[in-house]
Amino acid sequence: MPDTPDPVGLLEGLHSTPARRYLADTPIPEDVLWELLDAAVRGPSGGNRQPWGWLVVTDPATKAAIAPFYVEGWQRSYGVRREELLHPDRDPQPPTGLSTSTYRAVEHLAHHIAEAPVWVFPVLPGAAGSQDKRLGGSIYGAVQNLLLAARAYGIGGVLTSFHLTHEQEVNALLGLPEDAATMGLVPLGYPTRGRWAQPRRRPLEEVVFWERWGETRNRS
Amino acid sequence: MPDTPDPVGLLEGLHSTPARRYLADTPIPEDVLWELLDAAVRGPSGGNRQPWGWLVVTDPATKAAIAPFYVEGWQRSYGVRREELLHPDRDPQPPTGLSTSTYRAVEHLAHHIAEAPVWVFPVLPGAAGSQDKRLGGSIYGAVQNLLLAARAYGIGGVLTSFHLTHEQEVNALLGLPEDAATMGLVPLGYPTRGRWAQPRRRPLEEVVFWERWGETRNRS
Repeated sequence: MPDTPDPVGLLEGLHSTPARRYLADTPIPEDVLWELLDAAVRGPSGGNRQPWGWLVVTDPATKAAIAPFYVEGWQRSYGVRREELLHPDRDPQPPTGLSTSTYRAVEHLAHHIAEAPVWVFPVLPGAAGSQDKRLGGSIYGAVQNLLLAARAYGIGGVLTSFHLTHEQEVNALLGLPEDAATMGLVPLGYPTRGRWAQPRRRPLEEVVFWERWGETRNRS
Repeated sequence: MPDTPDPVGLLEGLHSTPARRYLADTPIPEDVLWELLDAAVRGPSGGNRQPWGWLVVTDPATKAAIAPFYVEGWQRSYGVRREELLHPDRDPQPPTGLSTSTYRAVEHLAHHIAEAPVWVFPVLPGAAGSQDKRLGGSIYGAVQNLLLAARAYGIGGVLTSFHLTHEQEVNALLGLPEDAATMGLVPLGYPTRGRWAQPRRRPLEEVVFWERWGETRNRS
């Protein structure tokens, strides 16, 4: 467990921070958590308002109370499609969506999320009633900073949201104000499987357009 | 103009990528743009669906057509508060919101955004009617990757949205499908003022809570 950061370069880090879903229950030192959050808040927010709060949960009782909601959320979204998504005829590495190995990782996390030593909830007070699809511009860049800083310390995580099937119960357990919203749940821990490899994506030339929508170019 | 990336470290990069709003009109080589976008798409999206398109605009005619909308958006949000925000009695470095120097930078960008050699619009097809406040979880992490990768090449930018005062006109100029939404506008260019310094934020101990909302700790 490194307590000093890996000297990974910025570009290399951007290219080698996949979601990590197999996480040991080894605690993360509190000074490391402060470092991760200190990097997170350097992310952007509209008008630099920093409208956020970052709620760190390590208490096994809180995690145990929320974990069943998380499993339920996973079950509704993915568990019900288990046979389809793990079907042997299916492309094991589809360009979009979940590969079979990722499906298994998501399933693993759903059943073991309480073992992750730290959960971070990025929270926006006042946002409970928001219908602004661009609201996340004021927090998800900072969440990405959190995940990238974690990677520098050998700590993995993933931005997830399966707890939202029981949003009100979770908010109550966390003591959130009525008008606040969790914008996700980021479990953090030292990875037990997988590696810091480049995440697989659709071909870049298919998703980049030049001057007008739909106009593609070959990468020279 | 570096065409090879700065060997800045990951953590250092996270701590030294402020919004850059004074941008030269010097072109950015296309191979560098591909590199920036290749890093962007390594960011996360829900279920790895990568629901995005990345529209790169360099055409002066398109920029000139959109720039007046951008100024208008700035005027409505900030221009009308110019005297208040630049008042000499005001804290020049407030912990949240715009400092006077940032106000001047935002004002500069509003009037000069067409000079930035490249604009990137992160777009979500199918999202025009969305009222999901968490939608951005599937694109703003990738936008942050874009800005961080740019910083590695000595290129600055900022996630902004003042073009949205004329959203339909902008969408038409960009040739977007009816159901698509720009999730922001990121002007990119080589900075002419300022530096890669740590952005100022609220004290970390005020925005991090432990176990339950509102429970603060001193950083040891």
